[in-house]
Amino acid sequence: MRYLLYYWPEIQGRGEFIRLALEDAGASYVDVARGHGGMAAMEKFLGREGQRRPPFASPFLKAGARVIAQTPNILYFLGPRLRLAPRAEADRLWVHQLQLTIADWLVEVHDVHHPIGSGLYYEEQKREARRRAADFLRNRLPKYLNYFEGILAAHRGDWLLGRKACYGDLSLFQMVAGLRYAFPRAMAQLACPRLAALHDEVAARPRLARYLASKRRIPFNRQGIFRHYPALDRVLK
Amino acid sequence: MRYLLYYWPEIQGRGEFIRLALEDAGASYVDVARGHGGMAAMEKFLGREGQRRPPFASPFLKAGARVIAQTPNILYFLGPRLRLAPRAEADRLWVHQLQLTIADWLVEVHDVHHPIGSGLYYEEQKREARRRAADFLRNRLPKYLNYFEGILAAHRGDWLLGRKACYGDLSLFQMVAGLRYAFPRAMAQLACPRLAALHDEVAARPRLARYLASKRRIPFNRQGIFRHYPALDRVLK
Repeated sequence: MRYLLYYWPEIQGRGEFIRLALEDAGASYVDVARGHGGMAAMEKFLGREGQRRPPFASPFLKAGARVIAQTPNILYFLGPRLRLAPRAEADRLWVHQLQLTIADWLVEVHDVHHPIGSGLYYEEQKREARRRAADFLRNRLPKYLNYFEGILAAHRGDWLLGRKACYGDLSLFQMVAGLRYAFPRAMAQLACPRLAALHDEVAARPRLARYLASKRRIPFNRQGIFRHYPALDRVLK
Repeated sequence: MRYLLYYWPEIQGRGEFIRLALEDAGASYVDVARGHGGMAAMEKFLGREGQRRPPFASPFLKAGARVIAQTPNILYFLGPRLRLAPRAEADRLWVHQLQLTIADWLVEVHDVHHPIGSGLYYEEQKREARRRAADFLRNRLPKYLNYFEGILAAHRGDWLLGRKACYGDLSLFQMVAGLRYAFPRAMAQLACPRLAALHDEVAARPRLARYLASKRRIPFNRQGIFRHYPALDRVLK
């Protein structure tokens, strides 16, 4: 199966969680919007009237005749197919539950720099962003980090499920990498040794190491979800 | 199977999306935190160290020995069991995709009155809430309403899937009801005839009609996700 991934070509964003899974599995895929005419193809798809099962937004994945949207839903679909999730229903829903919590966390990361509206520039909501950043770094970020540290501590092995990596582990790598980019000062103060070790293990997986060193890995930047604005990276008290 | 639902007892909140499915199906369930000692049971569960598969937050559902969290994940699990979702994978993931979009929408509704932090009172973020409300009502709310209107228009029949109701339809009822409570002026200006008809059809389903008239249906209030603050219910331009 050759997958077609549709996502904005200039940011990691939500698409990156899917790219990491496809790359780690060595899957055959096309990052459509990064190719010639790809953006037009994606926008046409999103704007088409009368579709029976339209995506609300990108990313979406074409797998044969199927079109699947919503990042955790795409990963739920891909997981067993890429051998990055167990097949038993209870285990599969558990990994999905974790991915949904990561998705909630990601929304909060985004809303730090966009607390008023995603259609406005950061510069139009800087004051509000400072307040939201303080709340996020003090209350929410430690809560998420501690939650995942606790799960990693409750199992033997390095991964969320214990001995075998799943797509949720790849997503946690991305959260740690992104948070370190966006909030280097705050992250340096927060202890998350198991997540830090997981980050390094994911980055060292052979296919991902090649991917991360390649041009396919879009650098973090100020158009993406993880953004570094020094004014928002407060030292915690 | 007798289900145990754990959720805050004084609000509809996210738990209501699960209550509606259980009630519509006539399922046997206990709304644990609304019973004697139930809040303590829920909080103990959320705070317990060393759990192998802990929920990050409520709602969560106990089904036999299993504990399942994240509202869309719980509904994905319950769907076929309550005959509120098809069994074929492609259809089941499509309904789930819609539910995830509803979940995103719900976060935006919440953040209208809490743009800075969920741990702060509304009164501490009123000014920011006014700005966010204006953006939400002008840009985001019409986008979500039009998306679901378009899906309903693309099928014959009254429901998201056409001829048979699924849990996503019950969730759309809840969105329309909540938005009308929170933003009566704005909602009166936005045309969404198919969603309005769907709302009425859901409310007339016999088991739900009895539920909605009962004391089990917690009234909308200013502790929940849908809140009516006249200052935030702007007339659109």
